Amino acid sequence: MYRADEGIGFLLRYENIAWYENGTVRILDRRIYPVETTYVTCTRHEEVAKAIADMVTQSGGPYTAAMMGMALAAYEASNLDEEKFRAYMEQAAYTLSHARPTTVKKMEAVTQRSMKRLNRELELGTSLQDMPEKLFDEAVCRLNETYDKYDLVAKHLADKIPHNGTVMTQCFAETIIGTLLRECRKRGSEIKMICPETRPYYQGARLTASVAYDMGFDTTIITDNMPAFVMHEKHVDVFTSAADVITMDGYVVNKIGTFQIALAARYWGIPYFTTGTPNPGHPTMENVEIELRDPDLVLESMGYNHTLKGIKGFYPAFDVTPPKLIDGIVTDKGIFSPYNLSAYFDKDQQHDQDR
Amino acid sequence: MYRADEGIGFLLRYENIAWYENGTVRILDRRIYPVETTYVTCTRHEEVAKAIADMVTQSGGPYTAAMMGMALAAYEASNLDEEKFRAYMEQAAYTLSHARPTTVKKMEAVTQRSMKRLNRELELGTSLQDMPEKLFDEAVCRLNETYDKYDLVAKHLADKIPHNGTVMTQCFAETIIGTLLRECRKRGSEIKMICPETRPYYQGARLTASVAYDMGFDTTIITDNMPAFVMHEKHVDVFTSAADVITMDGYVVNKIGTFQIALAARYWGIPYFTTGTPNPGHPTMENVEIELRDPDLVLESMGYNHTLKGIKGFYPAFDVTPPKLIDGIVTDKGIFSPYNLSAYFDKDQQHDQDR
Repeated sequence: MYRADEGIGFLLRYENIAWYENGTVRILDRRIYPVETTYVTCTRHEEVAKAIADMVTQSGGPYTAAMMGMALAAYEASNLDEEKFRAYMEQAAYTLSHARPTTVKKMEAVTQRSMKRLNRELELGTSLQDMPEKLFDEAVCRLNETYDKYDLVAKHLADKIPHNGTVMTQCFAETIIGTLLRECRKRGSEIKMICPETRPYYQGARLTASVAYDMGFDTTIITDNMPAFVMHEKHVDVFTSAADVITMDGYVVNKIGTFQIALAARYWGIPYFTTGTPNPGHPTMENVEIELRDPDLVLESMGYNHTLKGIKGFYPAFDVTPPKLIDGIVTDKGIFSPYNLSAYFDKDQQHDQDR
Repeated sequence: MYRADEGIGFLLRYENIAWYENGTVRILDRRIYPVETTYVTCTRHEEVAKAIADMVTQSGGPYTAAMMGMALAAYEASNLDEEKFRAYMEQAAYTLSHARPTTVKKMEAVTQRSMKRLNRELELGTSLQDMPEKLFDEAVCRLNETYDKYDLVAKHLADKIPHNGTVMTQCFAETIIGTLLRECRKRGSEIKMICPETRPYYQGARLTASVAYDMGFDTTIITDNMPAFVMHEKHVDVFTSAADVITMDGYVVNKIGTFQIALAARYWGIPYFTTGTPNPGHPTMENVEIELRDPDLVLESMGYNHTLKGIKGFYPAFDVTPPKLIDGIVTDKGIFSPYNLSAYFDKDQQHDQDR
């Protein structure tokens, strides 16, 4: 069942992303790993939404957490009558989808997947008591599909990285980085990873670097003011990141910092490849809201405040990279120009017909 | 005697930069201020060199510390005969100048200033016992001259900042920032400061932001992955930084991060002004060594390690911004094109004749 776990770092094993079992959802706390390996345990779906909002998990983690949260919501509501149960689940889907503003549309897609499964099970006469397990199955099923897709993404991305080349990335790209590294290992390509630390939460230092190091790759951490200088000094071949949103007109919304690294990559003539899927729910940037997080978080590090009381912080969680700085959007179906993302969906039809 | 102290933040008062008194040099520890206000006390000039190497002080601080260290060396050697005293002082000048590799030439200029004063005093028959006080005087004299110069730099820089405008800076530009803010205050211009935190030591968050806030300016801290996005969002009018070295062919060596902010500023059409003096000792970048510091420092924050043991760090202390990204070098004599820095010295002659 856990197909993707093989040959991948601890952090990316399914049960460490988010896991429903017996009325609880357990989520590895990515805000402190690997300094400490602790889990946040939720006994209410609202707690799962809060954990997502609080960034206990991030990158691809929230999507899995939301579906596990739907299983938990079903557990909470399993003694209601069917009509109230449905209403309860719709409300839970809303709460989980709206945990963070920038990714609402993508979150709705996964919670609606849970709702679809739920409706099918109800039609089949599945008891409400069995529903949590069915929705858990659905979450794992999606994870398997996602990893299958990521494996394809990783193949296309690996094609663009010279043998034993050097890769810079930003933040923690959930499985993309894991599957890319696995693919490179398969090809006998010992790539070197350079990871900007990604303040204020250090996802690059704590998560990306840990996964790469776990998997035996040469891994170097730098601070976030170094990418432009270091990419030249260390002969980086490719800059790559995932994306929280890819608009249909080719803008990439990703962890703050991506834009300035992309700018530097363009300056040095280093290609920048974004992994992900264009989102038809976002034809342009117009309806993408850039989340502003608690500004006090930039005034501290791991809970330790380091400046004068009264000084303000500002914390946009994401930035926006325009298509002119992007060399390609790497998808499960190949690499697309950011200027022609509708082709991804044309090709989809083609692809389906080919089968 | 302490002319510059008026209307400037605590951190920039002379006695908090580096201070010789009765056989000790006291240096405010900028690695921890303002979380704690502590001083490193040195009783040997080698300890002053080590404090400089360890970044107890930084920016303009090391130059003052080195001259105070020369006063301390004179105290240490005051019981030697004159020939041995001279040799001891030459050795001390070497040790202090070579504390950090990137700024050796600039440091040599200040320690040679102490040597020149020493030789003059010896000619005048000053006793070796009185020498520490004379070299201390020389250090304060240089500080006064430096601040006078900075006041002129600040005037030229302030001319380029719109009334009540928004300024982004990088790291902590010793007195430049202090004198700029004082000049803006004089003009009734309440500029807003945006300070990237400047990892790994957080000089931007701890020092620059503290000085600006102390002086009553609107001050915002961001992390180092944010400048490119935030300078547009917050309508930054000018990006400015000091420089550790300005080569005669217009390259600026400054705290790591400067280059990528300059790149982003150019992208958005925001001017970047560098404050400082071109260095004839560096006709090109060829003989500038970029200091590499202890790589473990990027794996931690304020002494707190945040990743797996075994993962490497990389810590270049400076980066290099090419002239094509620099709108002007702001000096005491006006603003010069980075492509025509010899004019600074032409003008010098002119200037001297004008007096």
